[in-house]
Amino acid sequence: MAQLQRIGIVGGTGYAGAELLRLLSAHPHAEVVAVTSRGDAGTPVADAYPQLRGVIDLDFVEPSTANLVDCDIVFFATPHAAAMHDVPALLEAGKRVIDLSADFRLKDADEWAAWYGVEHVCPELIERAAYGMPELNREQIAGADLVAAPGCYPTAVVLGFKPLIDAGLVDAASLIADAKTGVSGAGKSLKPGFLFAEMQESFKAYGVAGHRHLPEIRQTLGELAGGDVGLTFVPHLVPMIRGIHATLYARLSDSNAGSADALQALYENAYADEPFVDVLPAGAAPETRHVRGGNMCRMAVHRPGGGDTVVVLSVIDNLIKGAAGQAVQCFNLMIGADENCALAAPGPLP
Amino acid sequence: MAQLQRIGIVGGTGYAGAELLRLLSAHPHAEVVAVTSRGDAGTPVADAYPQLRGVIDLDFVEPSTANLVDCDIVFFATPHAAAMHDVPALLEAGKRVIDLSADFRLKDADEWAAWYGVEHVCPELIERAAYGMPELNREQIAGADLVAAPGCYPTAVVLGFKPLIDAGLVDAASLIADAKTGVSGAGKSLKPGFLFAEMQESFKAYGVAGHRHLPEIRQTLGELAGGDVGLTFVPHLVPMIRGIHATLYARLSDSNAGSADALQALYENAYADEPFVDVLPAGAAPETRHVRGGNMCRMAVHRPGGGDTVVVLSVIDNLIKGAAGQAVQCFNLMIGADENCALAAPGPLP
Amino acid sequence: MAQLQRIGIVGGTGYAGAELLRLLSAHPHAEVVAVTSRGDAGTPVADAYPQLRGVIDLDFVEPSTANLVDCDIVFFATPHAAAMHDVPALLEAGKRVIDLSADFRLKDADEWAAWYGVEHVCPELIERAAYGMPELNREQIAGADLVAAPGCYPTAVVLGFKPLIDAGLVDAASLIADAKTGVSGAGKSLKPGFLFAEMQESFKAYGVAGHRHLPEIRQTLGELAGGDVGLTFVPHLVPMIRGIHATLYARLSDSNAGSADALQALYENAYADEPFVDVLPAGAAPETRHVRGGNMCRMAVHRPGGGDTVVVLSVIDNLIKGAAGQAVQCFNLMIGADENCALAAPGPLP
Amino acid sequence: MAQLQRIGIVGGTGYAGAELLRLLSAHPHAEVVAVTSRGDAGTPVADAYPQLRGVIDLDFVEPSTANLVDCDIVFFATPHAAAMHDVPALLEAGKRVIDLSADFRLKDADEWAAWYGVEHVCPELIERAAYGMPELNREQIAGADLVAAPGCYPTAVVLGFKPLIDAGLVDAASLIADAKTGVSGAGKSLKPGFLFAEMQESFKAYGVAGHRHLPEIRQTLGELAGGDVGLTFVPHLVPMIRGIHATLYARLSDSNAGSADALQALYENAYADEPFVDVLPAGAAPETRHVRGGNMCRMAVHRPGGGDTVVVLSVIDNLIKGAAGQAVQCFNLMIGADENCALAAPGPLP
Repeated sequence: MAQLQRIGIVGGTGYAGAELLRLLSAHPHAEVVAVTSRGDAGTPVADAYPQLRGVIDLDFVEPSTANLVDCDIVFFATPHAAAMHDVPALLEAGKRVIDLSADFRLKDADEWAAWYGVEHVCPELIERAAYGMPELNREQIAGADLVAAPGCYPTAVVLGFKPLIDAGLVDAASLIADAKTGVSGAGKSLKPGFLFAEMQESFKAYGVAGHRHLPEIRQTLGELAGGDVGLTFVPHLVPMIRGIHATLYARLSDSNAGSADALQALYENAYADEPFVDVLPAGAAPETRHVRGGNMCRMAVHRPGGGDTVVVLSVIDNLIKGAAGQAVQCFNLMIGADENCALAAPGPLP
Repeated sequence: MAQLQRIGIVGGTGYAGAELLRLLSAHPHAEVVAVTSRGDAGTPVADAYPQLRGVIDLDFVEPSTANLVDCDIVFFATPHAAAMHDVPALLEAGKRVIDLSADFRLKDADEWAAWYGVEHVCPELIERAAYGMPELNREQIAGADLVAAPGCYPTAVVLGFKPLIDAGLVDAASLIADAKTGVSGAGKSLKPGFLFAEMQESFKAYGVAGHRHLPEIRQTLGELAGGDVGLTFVPHLVPMIRGIHATLYARLSDSNAGSADALQALYENAYADEPFVDVLPAGAAPETRHVRGGNMCRMAVHRPGGGDTVVVLSVIDNLIKGAAGQAVQCFNLMIGADENCALAAPGPLP
Repeated sequence: MAQLQRIGIVGGTGYAGAELLRLLSAHPHAEVVAVTSRGDAGTPVADAYPQLRGVIDLDFVEPSTANLVDCDIVFFATPHAAAMHDVPALLEAGKRVIDLSADFRLKDADEWAAWYGVEHVCPELIERAAYGMPELNREQIAGADLVAAPGCYPTAVVLGFKPLIDAGLVDAASLIADAKTGVSGAGKSLKPGFLFAEMQESFKAYGVAGHRHLPEIRQTLGELAGGDVGLTFVPHLVPMIRGIHATLYARLSDSNAGSADALQALYENAYADEPFVDVLPAGAAPETRHVRGGNMCRMAVHRPGGGDTVVVLSVIDNLIKGAAGQAVQCFNLMIGADENCALAAPGPLP
Repeated sequence: MAQLQRIGIVGGTGYAGAELLRLLSAHPHAEVVAVTSRGDAGTPVADAYPQLRGVIDLDFVEPSTANLVDCDIVFFATPHAAAMHDVPALLEAGKRVIDLSADFRLKDADEWAAWYGVEHVCPELIERAAYGMPELNREQIAGADLVAAPGCYPTAVVLGFKPLIDAGLVDAASLIADAKTGVSGAGKSLKPGFLFAEMQESFKAYGVAGHRHLPEIRQTLGELAGGDVGLTFVPHLVPMIRGIHATLYARLSDSNAGSADALQALYENAYADEPFVDVLPAGAAPETRHVRGGNMCRMAVHRPGGGDTVVVLSVIDNLIKGAAGQAVQCFNLMIGADENCALAAPGPLP
């Protein structure tokens, strides 16, 4: 039976932090006791998030370790290169940590430094971190004291490719992930491109030359494939707030294998026991609104025209299954609660 | 202690019906046993609402009284002029009914016929119906077997004007309600004006000559004022799915009364004990997203420039506090549950 | 016959500046010779506005008077309190100036200072400036060397109220303007509230306590009324890029006057000769998309329910009739061109 | 020197028809004399398109050949399987025809019948039709009396792949086109999926099993490649009105060929003389808003990570370069006008 956990949230003013607050405030085994914000310390959390008026009655505090001393578990919802400075002391103090940022995702500290532009300050902890995708390593997460919650794109892409790669059906050297995201993945960044007037009624690709989620996806797919994979990853920005839609293309190694029926069965079987992966009926196409506000990943597998290219459509809510929800899913595993505790409710639609 | 109620939902394919399903599926005292749909009978409810896959495991049934025989309470989420045909038999059979449509809202059957273009078939039941706005008549609702849940505009407008009228501070002969709504209030109507290509990046007024919610608002404000009121009501369509923002204008009867501080105190006191009305601090302006996905009505009161016009800003989620949520709030009162049971969670934001 | 004018645009990176570029690049009597930008000097204009690739082949230059020496007419599309520093020297040098900013709109320099938080540096020029609303003072504009182009809200509101006030039909002490705008009126301001994730699917009022366009509207309506007017002005932000919709409320002084037919005739006659004001048929409601991308103001007049409140609905494209288009309309008057030269084309729809 | 042409537009109530009206009303060599609409015959065109009030002063007429007798050139902006019934008589009568629908695009009448579900009534005319993509066969269009204007997806996809295929650099057996469109391509179809409430804040793929533009793209790419091509085509629906973004993937036949610099030069050279294809600088990513309201196709070519997959990003306005604008471009060629006549203006942005 899970016990009540005292929770700290570092970086509570961002969107992932707000979703953590919303999800954990309704969690029977969680009591949020500290929410930090460098800029808003001393002001009510509900001033930053008026939808939480009457739900959260805390003031933001400074993001110091002292302010987290009463916590059992600390979530980091910070930009990259922040958590790594505080995590060692927290682990030392016996806290468990779930990091929603990128700091402990890449196993190779040099690669991490190359993509994030700064040296890692505690590379010795990287190996200790469990990669927080329950569908891949549920047991490791349950026993971990440090969890690196995956990025939003990796979640949608890896879950979509996994059955194909596990089954060895496709050429892992030429995978393509054409991914589309709502803008909330960028957080509250004050950049012109994220202004309403610059985004509305427009669509574009970005980061074609290289996006920070590329090495994470490659690393995780590589672990599944048992070797290097070749991946072309093109992210796009959709004029919407939430949602990721990954359209995945893989070439069948043997065009006689992988009938549409076999592919459908492969996917249904692969995820039959997963509480948060839903394989749609043959022929379907998931819409991002079907997962908006909830922790589900929904997907469909197609083999258009009977050709040798398999197409997988995979959708998540980037702030939930792609961030806060997946972190809570890990939390549930870590404390021995039902995995779907406080995560079962679908979001409103339309 | 509230007992488990077997629930029927008539008209389950519309947006209000879907929200009822979502809210009631998480309600500890409700078990949805029948969901009707004339067009989709025999098919899974979750086919119409894929976000409910794994949450609702029922097929739609035909909307006949026979299919509702096992229910304790029946919700109607139908277009107008449907519920009135079935309600008499259901009441006769001892069911309690919560009607989200317009059929039992207007006390004057002739006025109802004039606005809805059809004769009322059971005018004798109109008086028996409790008007389902808990902030106005909580006790009547609790004891009712027939509840007429209010329209979305009336909810935002009446709650906004109520303290001013109760206090007798304003000229009730010249009220103005400039209201703005997202499109989901129109349901899934297949009309050109509700197409994405016709709504996106545009804003317009509609129904200036007369909207069906006008007599309902006038009736309810008139009850508060103890006599006829004069109301100019101009609804507008906002390019968004959900949310109502009512901007209310009233002239102070005595410009020496009603200081900004006094108005703020008036509103705070009026709603101090209401679980679903939140008066914002002085100077604030509620945003519809602050109530999106939740059952709250948030409002602010202003007296711009110290003039004699009071401005009230009132926002709700039209499908929740303006429809399904308010109906569940009534349901809670009717069964003796906590009024906020299954309604306390805020929606996701952003 | 109008002669070719060499044009300078100061502040070419904002949205109004970009619209000026687009409109003037197709103008037969204008040759844009200098576009200034403090931040982007030295880079191609088309880098900032890729839609102008192949249309504009200039680099931005520093905003110095020296860079404008070859111009005949200079447009300022700058934030407030910029133009007033450069205009005196330009006028001295014989240039004519059209200022799209607020610097020369208010006749009272003290009131200007109070609203804009800085002293005016050339108050002696204020009286010299023609207020650039052709429907009010076409002749003054034609002969002016300094034109203060109106704000976007004032354009929609003043044109909407004008016939009623000119006819003396309404109580000018209790006017209400409930106005709604797309976000482009805020320019490219990097403020959180203008992020896509903060605006999409939401609606709110702002500036209820006092908006900078209020004194401008009051001043201009006061000139029409021949005395002070009382105005409650509540602006709102719509989740769209472009468009203003003003919903105007005025009380008839004599409820026996002002039949719906008389009001319709009043409006049609008032604007019969105006090239950019279109009075819709009785009963209509203009949509902002009907003027998007064009210089028209479209409006409709209603008297709902035969009550004593007149409702006027008035829409413009805030960046065109509310900014760049109106400035070009003034330019046409100033150079003796057809008033609708380069302004006649409607925008794309949908 | 081009002569004034009397123009008929069949199917003037759809979006492509409205854009034709807008473009042709500003065309110096076109006079629109007849606009047909079965449903709206007898009513003013400007009632259906209020943005055209004051621009178009015609009433819709019935879509009969008699009503087109005074035309020199007739545009069809009808759903598929309409034009083919009227075109034979019009050609017989000496009219020239530009068909924006699908009726004359596919060279194989059986394939056409299979995709459109109805037999072709004048298969003998198919070969006579020039495929209206000027970048492919400018001369044939100039001399044609029947032009089949391409679909919107084919325009974006074919222009994007063309230089690669012409140069023989890539494996034409495994092309992938991941395409995204705004909803206006669906016209004013009254289907639930195109309602604002069903599209806003959501993204999805559709037609994965087979879209009607697939055979057209395959046919045209096949002509370029000189043989069959293999193409996986997955279209997606973006919550926006206008714009197509095609993300194209092709495998280099020889991974030593096709350096990023060489690819950039290939594309720049291929389109150096094209008035409506703009190759962006290396590293750029076109946004659909950069072509919204204009006739340009803008594109960028990438080779991410130096791998053997080339990525081309190609954007158009689906209603202009993907429909009405391209038809006018063909019209200009047919009458000997400048190819960019009435098409040079960029659209408003933002």
